[in-house]
Amino acid sequence: MAATITAIGFDADDTLWQNEQFFKLTEGRFKALLAGHAAPEDLGQRLLAVERRNLDHYGYGIKGFTLSMIETAVEITEGRVPAKVIGEILAAGREMLRHPVETLPHVRETLERLAGSYRLILITKGDLFDQERKLAQSGLGDLFDAIEIVSEKNAATYGRIFSQHGDGAAQSVMVGNSLKSDILPALEAGGWAVHIPHALTWAIEHAEKPLEAPRFRHVEHMGQLTALLSTLS
Amino acid sequence: MAATITAIGFDADDTLWQNEQFFKLTEGRFKALLAGHAAPEDLGQRLLAVERRNLDHYGYGIKGFTLSMIETAVEITEGRVPAKVIGEILAAGREMLRHPVETLPHVRETLERLAGSYRLILITKGDLFDQERKLAQSGLGDLFDAIEIVSEKNAATYGRIFSQHGDGAAQSVMVGNSLKSDILPALEAGGWAVHIPHALTWAIEHAEKPLEAPRFRHVEHMGQLTALLSTLS
Repeated sequence: MAATITAIGFDADDTLWQNEQFFKLTEGRFKALLAGHAAPEDLGQRLLAVERRNLDHYGYGIKGFTLSMIETAVEITEGRVPAKVIGEILAAGREMLRHPVETLPHVRETLERLAGSYRLILITKGDLFDQERKLAQSGLGDLFDAIEIVSEKNAATYGRIFSQHGDGAAQSVMVGNSLKSDILPALEAGGWAVHIPHALTWAIEHAEKPLEAPRFRHVEHMGQLTALLSTLS
Repeated sequence: MAATITAIGFDADDTLWQNEQFFKLTEGRFKALLAGHAAPEDLGQRLLAVERRNLDHYGYGIKGFTLSMIETAVEITEGRVPAKVIGEILAAGREMLRHPVETLPHVRETLERLAGSYRLILITKGDLFDQERKLAQSGLGDLFDAIEIVSEKNAATYGRIFSQHGDGAAQSVMVGNSLKSDILPALEAGGWAVHIPHALTWAIEHAEKPLEAPRFRHVEHMGQLTALLSTLS
């Protein structure tokens, strides 16, 4: 009945490799640095509010996150944060940009198994510079037929990418951990979508689960993807 | 003798639209904010040194520039800069990200004239998010056959882009204001290169002029490009 699936899009952060844990670690350092000025929960809420407010200016990524931490520190202390603390926030941000790339379980063998049978496309948002660094360090780059680093993941993005590198969205499946960025817009574009949840997902990426969508699937980890794909077409 | 030129690559910042002037304006504000702490020349030199040191972490763009201004302010005051000043540097950075796009003279009509006869490719480096914003605001996007926002402009970058979107570097010409990023690596890739100087060019983009290269040309402004191209092939 359904057309054959010929292309698979993969999200990168927290789908192929760890990402959010480095943000959480840094947020912990940020809260410790400002512990004398506000309760940890307040700091977390203020930081998230500043990040949301800045998304239209900064987009996604570590540099924008660092700028938002500094802005929160200035605001929450009403301009009294010592410059030494600002220097430590800057250092924490630079450290994030150097964090080692830790590939998630089953990722490499699954990509290697699928590479002969499907066109594989990496589709990720965030800092171009940082995403290229992580891809190079992961050693996974050669397994992909195309790399798309985009500023926003919406239905138009997926429509364009699956037309350009595959046979259109209806013959493509998107795999990722974010319902908001990976799953819902890929379904909206007319594609299939496989959710692989990650224990840590950024609050801004949360969304209602599209329980009833006929092209929506769910697996626990990347090792279950190959078997699932054979049931789709 | 020479093969026909079929593709033209255009740099964006300070080739299609003003860019460096916004950095210079912001640097002026930065120096004014820290005037009590160091001489303006020292501030400029320290900022440039911090920018160079951070290029490997931040890549190019306004967010990295803002982070480098903050780092310089913390360093040069030995940790005594008031948080209020940090807040003003953050605000100056956000303002840069909203600056209106000012297309340079002769750009639109030249692109419109060339669009029928050549494949036009926008090739720019910097923040993905900010470059997309500027392209959208410029209204020039539809004149290009391809948009390539890259993290670094070297010979390999030009070789790949001119193969993918044109007929290879030997049948392509790169047009831009930076000898270091636009001209030298395009020549190295085996392509043609046309330098259009801009009054303001960032110190990191300076390079020795390749006076003797047979495929190197120079014009004063974009309005002279069409006539020059007709002499190349």
